[in-house]
Amino acid sequence: MRRLLLGSGGYREPERRELLFGAMREHFAGVERILFVPYAVADHDAVVSAMAEKGFGAGFPLDGLHRATDPVAAVEQAEAIYVGGGNTFLLVDHLQRLGLLEPIRRRVAGGMPYMGVSAGSNVACPTLCTTNDMPIVQPASHETLGLVDFQINPHYFAGQVLVRDGDELQEHFGETRDDRIAEYHQWNERPVVGLWEGTHLVVRGESVELFGGPARLFRPGRRALDVAPGDALTDALGA
Amino acid sequence: MRRLLLGSGGYREPERRELLFGAMREHFAGVERILFVPYAVADHDAVVSAMAEKGFGAGFPLDGLHRATDPVAAVEQAEAIYVGGGNTFLLVDHLQRLGLLEPIRRRVAGGMPYMGVSAGSNVACPTLCTTNDMPIVQPASHETLGLVDFQINPHYFAGQVLVRDGDELQEHFGETRDDRIAEYHQWNERPVVGLWEGTHLVVRGESVELFGGPARLFRPGRRALDVAPGDALTDALGA
Repeated sequence: MRRLLLGSGGYREPERRELLFGAMREHFAGVERILFVPYAVADHDAVVSAMAEKGFGAGFPLDGLHRATDPVAAVEQAEAIYVGGGNTFLLVDHLQRLGLLEPIRRRVAGGMPYMGVSAGSNVACPTLCTTNDMPIVQPASHETLGLVDFQINPHYFAGQVLVRDGDELQEHFGETRDDRIAEYHQWNERPVVGLWEGTHLVVRGESVELFGGPARLFRPGRRALDVAPGDALTDALGA
Repeated sequence: MRRLLLGSGGYREPERRELLFGAMREHFAGVERILFVPYAVADHDAVVSAMAEKGFGAGFPLDGLHRATDPVAAVEQAEAIYVGGGNTFLLVDHLQRLGLLEPIRRRVAGGMPYMGVSAGSNVACPTLCTTNDMPIVQPASHETLGLVDFQINPHYFAGQVLVRDGDELQEHFGETRDDRIAEYHQWNERPVVGLWEGTHLVVRGESVELFGGPARLFRPGRRALDVAPGDALTDALGA
């Protein structure tokens, strides 16, 4: 049975962190060490140290995958895997080059707990097509792990943003997330879950549950649907 | 001599529009009709009509390139070209598939006036790597027109954004533009011009001039430099 914990990101507020850490303790119960995938950022040692210092392991020791001499073997032997945030294109490029997509899929299919945050949640989807990140490098393809059959847009928010211009707030006219996801659905069919910051999904087999706050579900040709924790997300996703 | 007008986007305010239209009248002086490239959006007819209705041709008739039976020939015969905004990945995918990169480069090198807004400014750069858009489709490569040898980040703003949550404003913790451009520079060398909304660049041969407001210039290993209209952007870019 697949076991996934997929976080949106934005865990800079203490209550949000506590919620995530509680979910991690449940998700990783019985696990001794977690294999951490740091490839979404450039400095792998720094991110692993920072995660530990900030307590982002929620009590579990994190082993950086970049330290393994054989990354595929490390995935094959891991008790659990945690893919951290950063730049999704960079992460996908590394996962593809190191031949890690298939080994991770196999292990997750076999029941190994997977956790992703932000870019780590993007790559749990079939493609990177609903990332917010800048395409700073070019992976061989947009294909990602496909551990779920829907797409996630992490750090989701509704409407236009406001930006600071000195002391003033100014309306920003760039595309909203809803605009961007509507564009995605002009060319793609998969449902997209817009996950507000501080929220996460827990996937157990066919069940998909939302925690921490609302999410917006986008499906081609249908109105967007706002869902709350406890709502029947599994059915709405057709999972 | 190359002649480019590269707009950031965000022209929803009347003063910003007037500034852009004035620049267009100067840029396209002597031109009778402009070839408009609508491939950054899905509905080509609709965008050409909308541009005309809103007066975005600044008095010049716009002919949609999608109506041409031979798009390469249409580019070869055009007096001037205007590449509109939308999704950069979609635009690049079309330009690559239709074999338009090389013909546009040739014409611009020969002095044909080029105008781009938002995605249309992104594709004037060597790569699409500093777009803000969602990778909704996968072009064959990140390569774009390379009409200038620096990168543009359109719709630029500084700092964190604020998002609306009902009636409240909430801090958003996703990467800032400066974070994203710093990530770009961990893997790439080219200078990046962050163009605030409502601003534009005018390129004449080797000269690059900024109009309408400030821009922020990012170069690897150096502090970001805020520039104002009238500042020596050409020298700072090393163009």
